[in-house]
Amino acid sequence: MKIITQSLASDSAVYLQGYLRQPEDTTLTYPAVVIVPGGSYTHIPEQQAEDLAMAWFARGYQAFFLRYSFVGEKQPLLPTPVVELAQSLALIRQNSTAWQIQADNLIIAGFSVGGHITALFNNLWHDAAFNQLAGTTPAQIKPRAVILGYPVITPAAGFPNDDATLASWTDDPQSIAADQQVTASNVPTFIWVTAADPLVPVQNALAYAQATIAAGVDTELHVFHQGPHGLALANSVTAWKPGTDLPHVAHWLDLANEWLTELP
Amino acid sequence: MKIITQSLASDSAVYLQGYLRQPEDTTLTYPAVVIVPGGSYTHIPEQQAEDLAMAWFARGYQAFFLRYSFVGEKQPLLPTPVVELAQSLALIRQNSTAWQIQADNLIIAGFSVGGHITALFNNLWHDAAFNQLAGTTPAQIKPRAVILGYPVITPAAGFPNDDATLASWTDDPQSIAADQQVTASNVPTFIWVTAADPLVPVQNALAYAQATIAAGVDTELHVFHQGPHGLALANSVTAWKPGTDLPHVAHWLDLANEWLTELP
Repeated sequence: MKIITQSLASDSAVYLQGYLRQPEDTTLTYPAVVIVPGGSYTHIPEQQAEDLAMAWFARGYQAFFLRYSFVGEKQPLLPTPVVELAQSLALIRQNSTAWQIQADNLIIAGFSVGGHITALFNNLWHDAAFNQLAGTTPAQIKPRAVILGYPVITPAAGFPNDDATLASWTDDPQSIAADQQVTASNVPTFIWVTAADPLVPVQNALAYAQATIAAGVDTELHVFHQGPHGLALANSVTAWKPGTDLPHVAHWLDLANEWLTELP
Repeated sequence: MKIITQSLASDSAVYLQGYLRQPEDTTLTYPAVVIVPGGSYTHIPEQQAEDLAMAWFARGYQAFFLRYSFVGEKQPLLPTPVVELAQSLALIRQNSTAWQIQADNLIIAGFSVGGHITALFNNLWHDAAFNQLAGTTPAQIKPRAVILGYPVITPAAGFPNDDATLASWTDDPQSIAADQQVTASNVPTFIWVTAADPLVPVQNALAYAQATIAAGVDTELHVFHQGPHGLALANSVTAWKPGTDLPHVAHWLDLANEWLTELP
């Protein structure tokens, strides 16, 4: 494995970290995954992001995580991280030959607010104004599929629940309601969450699934009954609050990968 | 195994068929499952009901299916099958010693319109007027948990979609909207469905899950992206339309049984 850290544009605080398999056969190519971690838009849990990246690396992916901008670095924050995700996809595609990546097989997996970034990106990847803002083209940034773990979707579903936090995110709340902007151009979407999530209500995931289903987007949704927020791989090491070992919830990873194999 | 057929009350067309393990140790007791099959309220697919019963028998259950009344036998039909399900639970509890059943561990698994019957029953098991109608008491008919496969929930979610069929079901459509009658007394509920179901829209399952979650009921929901209606065990033999082998969807059974082990 070679670990690379690639700054995005001129902003050195923002980077894509990559974990690249180095096979003897340099003609082999692999799918790629970009992990978009959570962190409430206030920080980036890099170790957890790496753990999630390794879960796909172990399944044969070239794996990345995005260290995006957060509140404190830029306010109001959005849509900056969404633009950074677009630029990440373009960067990976641009380097796909050197990094032995299948350019048509880029998956994004976002968690908590990283799920918010990913859901907004899926709504916007084909949008002309968005691409102009990002300095990209739809062909450069189109993902094959997205995975959303316990995502934030819309302030209307209960997170954030205070005006000060929302104001630090955006001065246009309607623009960040991801369930309101879904179209048939969204790529296939896999969502998982726990019904008992005490921080980001399950209504976020339900609202987004209803929107993607209504738009005719390939949608899979798994709502596990128990478990706190931020479970990551739902084992005792990688969850946000260590000690949470939930093998039932941990099925999400195999379910997501089976789902990926069934996509056209 | 001993197979028994037990008529309910005086109506000989309605019966509970049971598949009872006969261990040498007659002090052993087992959980029980009642399968409530689909059939559009026009017929009962008994072979499929037996297949589903055997899936739990193989996991250590005393297994039953209910041959309930359907349109053609009684019109408007509802709530008759819901009452018959209540009487089935009371009958099983009454015979729990003879049948070596754990009286506090009765599970109901309803599919399609059988999911409608089961969801309505879960809303009503504790209701005084309903118990008076059924000639039962809440203590006799309380289930431990219910499982709903591709359920019909409410006419508002697109099934049935014609007035004549709806009129054959009820003269009071509001009374059969299962998502409108959920309370905190509902027992834990596991729901699975495919997003692509072309007959009973996934909006049925989503509406019911939102209602049970809002009421604080233990809820688990799995929406698989692909697959037609009536999948049963999602293998090529038991599905409504033979030839449908969907191992991804077939995970619902293990997920449901894991969920059962996690209930209080």
